Amino acid sequence: MKEAAIVMLAKRAKAASAKVAALDSKIKNLLLLKMAKALLSSEKKILEANRLDVIAAQKNNFAPAFIDRLTLTPKRLREMAKSLKAITRLSDPVGKKTAHWKTPAGLGVEKVRIPLGVIGMIYESRPDVTVDTAALCLKSGNTVILRGGSEAWHSNKILSDILRGVLKKNGVNPDIIQLMPPGHAAVKIILEQDKYIDLIIPRGGESLMKMVRGLSKIPVIRHDKGVCHIFVDRDADLKMAETICLNAKVQRPGTCNAMECLLVDQKIATQFLPSLLKKFKNFGVKVRRSSKDWGKEFLDLELALRVVPNIDAAMDHIQKYGSLHTESIITQNKKHAEKFLKNVLASVVMVNASTRLNDGFQLGLGSEVGISTTKLHAFGPMGLEELTTTKFVVRGQGQIRR
Amino acid sequence: MKEAAIVMLAKRAKAASAKVAALDSKIKNLLLLKMAKALLSSEKKILEANRLDVIAAQKNNFAPAFIDRLTLTPKRLREMAKSLKAITRLSDPVGKKTAHWKTPAGLGVEKVRIPLGVIGMIYESRPDVTVDTAALCLKSGNTVILRGGSEAWHSNKILSDILRGVLKKNGVNPDIIQLMPPGHAAVKIILEQDKYIDLIIPRGGESLMKMVRGLSKIPVIRHDKGVCHIFVDRDADLKMAETICLNAKVQRPGTCNAMECLLVDQKIATQFLPSLLKKFKNFGVKVRRSSKDWGKEFLDLELALRVVPNIDAAMDHIQKYGSLHTESIITQNKKHAEKFLKNVLASVVMVNASTRLNDGFQLGLGSEVGISTTKLHAFGPMGLEELTTTKFVVRGQGQIRR
Repeated sequence: MKEAAIVMLAKRAKAASAKVAALDSKIKNLLLLKMAKALLSSEKKILEANRLDVIAAQKNNFAPAFIDRLTLTPKRLREMAKSLKAITRLSDPVGKKTAHWKTPAGLGVEKVRIPLGVIGMIYESRPDVTVDTAALCLKSGNTVILRGGSEAWHSNKILSDILRGVLKKNGVNPDIIQLMPPGHAAVKIILEQDKYIDLIIPRGGESLMKMVRGLSKIPVIRHDKGVCHIFVDRDADLKMAETICLNAKVQRPGTCNAMECLLVDQKIATQFLPSLLKKFKNFGVKVRRSSKDWGKEFLDLELALRVVPNIDAAMDHIQKYGSLHTESIITQNKKHAEKFLKNVLASVVMVNASTRLNDGFQLGLGSEVGISTTKLHAFGPMGLEELTTTKFVVRGQGQIRR
Repeated sequence: MKEAAIVMLAKRAKAASAKVAALDSKIKNLLLLKMAKALLSSEKKILEANRLDVIAAQKNNFAPAFIDRLTLTPKRLREMAKSLKAITRLSDPVGKKTAHWKTPAGLGVEKVRIPLGVIGMIYESRPDVTVDTAALCLKSGNTVILRGGSEAWHSNKILSDILRGVLKKNGVNPDIIQLMPPGHAAVKIILEQDKYIDLIIPRGGESLMKMVRGLSKIPVIRHDKGVCHIFVDRDADLKMAETICLNAKVQRPGTCNAMECLLVDQKIATQFLPSLLKKFKNFGVKVRRSSKDWGKEFLDLELALRVVPNIDAAMDHIQKYGSLHTESIITQNKKHAEKFLKNVLASVVMVNASTRLNDGFQLGLGSEVGISTTKLHAFGPMGLEELTTTKFVVRGQGQIRR
C-alpha cells in the first residue's frame, strides 16, 4: 500500500467520524446484532482464511501459545458473536452528562460525553481483538483504524470485510471500520496523520511500543508491560495468600496482569513459603531469588521472590520496580491495607485479590480495549467510557464577559 | 544550562513528586497562604526584577500588548496574592472518589483521584501565569517544571525563588516547583524526559506548538489557537446578538476565546448587520468579507464575516474552519439551539452567550491552567480536577480469577 493510499484511508476515517458519532444507540445495537449473525453464518469462510494464517505461523515455528491465540474454531466464533451481543447490553456513553451546574451569572453548564473521533488500534495477532475493538469503537461512536499483527492478516481481512459488509448493507458508511495492511512502513505513515486521527492505542511488545512512542504525532495511550507484585504482609491470612499467589502466577502466566514478583514479609516467610514453594514446583514454576530478576516481566511459569523486612520496604520495592500496572497486598490488617492502597502508584491497587482480576470484565466495566499504563486520560482498564471525552455545553440568556 | 543539569532537574522533580502527592489539603492551603504573604512582602524585589524584563522588552520593540502582559505593578501583585488565596478555597481533588461499585464476585471497586505526577508547563512571557500555575499544581498534588517566555526570565526567577523559599522554610522539598532556564535547547531536552515527566502543557504561538508536537516523547495537552465563531440564527434576539457579538470581538480581542468569524443567517442579515457594522466601525474593528480570511485567528480588532443560507451551512463552515475551541449560536429557537449544541464539535459549545465566557473562572471551575484543544484527557478549560487522573482501588476477600 502506497503512502497516498494510507493517508487516504485516514482521511476517509475522519470523514466518516461525524456520522458514527451521531448514530442512535438503537441503530448501533442493531448493527452489532447483525454483525454477530453475519460472523456465525460465515463460519466456513472465516475458518478457511484463519487456516492460512495458522499454517504459515506453524511453518515459521511460532510458539504454541502464539498459535493458540491466533487460531479460530467454531467455538471461538460463537464466543465472538456472544461478545458482540454482550456489547449491545452495555450502556451507551455518548450524550451522557457527567456533571452540570449553574454559574453565578446564570449560565447553565454541562459536561457531555462525546466520542473521541478516530482511533488507531495497533495490536497482536489475535483475530478476536479485531472484532471486539471494532464493536467497542462502534458502540462508543468512534471510527476505528485496525492494525492487527501481520500473522493474522487473512483472518483480520475476512472478519473486517464481514463487519464492513453489515455496515454497507444497512446504509452506514463502512469506512468507520477500516483495516490497515501489514508492514511497519504503513504504521509509520499512520502515526503522522494527526490531522485525521485522534488517538493511537498500541498493545504489544517493547519494540513496537518504542517505535510508536518515537514516531507518533498523535496522542498515544500505552498498553504496556505489567510487572505486577503481590506483597504478603505479616498480618495476612496465609491460606488466602497461598491461593491468590498460585492463581496470580499459574492461571494464565502469559498475561500482563499475572504476578511477576512475590514480596513476603520476613516475619511470616518461614511459615508461609515452604508450602507455597512446593506447590509452585508442582506447577512447574521457576522461582528466582536474584536481585537482577526484580522488575522483569517473565510472561511464563517463572517469577522473582524477595523477602522484605516490612510493608514500607515492599512499597519501596514496588515504586522502584513496578510498571504502574497492578499491585496487590494480602493482609487482614486494615491500616496496612489502606496505607498500601493510598500510597502505591499503579492503575489498579488491590487488597486480598489476585492481580489477574485487573480486567475490564472482571472489574465490572463490561468489556475493555485493554489496560492503560498511561496516566493521562485513562489509567487502568479502558471500557466504553474511556473511548469518549467530554465537551462543555453552555446555555445562556445573553451573558457577556464583563 | 548543560544537558546533564536539565536531566537532573527533571529527575529531582520526579523524586519530589510522591511527597507532594501525599500532602494534606490543610498543609497545601497553609503553604499557599504563606506564598501570598511572601509575594506581598517582597514587592520591591519583584518589581525591580520585573523592571529589567520590561526595559529589555521595550528596547526590543515588543508590542504594547506584550509589554502590558509582562509588566507587574503593586496592584497586579495584590491580584496574584488574591488568586493564591482563592485557590485555597477550591476543593482539593486528590483522594476524591469519582465512582464506586461492587462486582458480582464481591469485589469493592472505587475510582480515586490521584495527581498526574510531574507537569511541564511551557508558556508565554506572563509572570502571573508562573504563580498561578505553581499554585494550581501544588493544590492538585503535582510537581511542576515551569518554562515561561524568556522575556520574563528575571520576573519568573524572583517569583519562583520566593515560592520555593516558602516551601523550604516549611520543610517541604522545594523541587516540587522548579523553573527552567530560557532557550530552546533546554526545552528540547526536557521534552525527551518521559521517564520523569508525565505531561507537557504548552501554551503559545504556532511555532512553539509545532516544535513541542514534533519533539515531545511526553504526552502533550495543547492549548492551541482559538478560531471561534458566532452564528446569528434567523430566530435570534437581534439586540442580544449585537451585544454578544460586540463583546466577543471588542472586550479583549487578543485572547483565544475572542470571536474571529461572524456567521449570519441571510434571512436576517440586512436587518441585523447595518447597526452592528456601524458599531464595529466605531470600535475600530476591521471586517473582512473574503473567503481567504475564513479560519484565521486575528487576535486583534479584526474579524471575518460570512452570510450563510441557514444553520446547516453555518455548522458546515464551523466544522471546516473551526479549531475545536469555542462556538456559539445566538437563537431563540430551541430546536436550532439543541441541534447546534449536539452536533458542533468544540471544547465549549454555547447558546446565547459570548465566546469570551469560555474560561475556567467564568464557567465555575474556580481557576484554570488554560483551555485544552486536545480531545484526550481534558477538553476545554482545565481546572484542578483536570490536573489529576484516577486509579482503581479494589478491595477483595480472597477473590481469584476462575
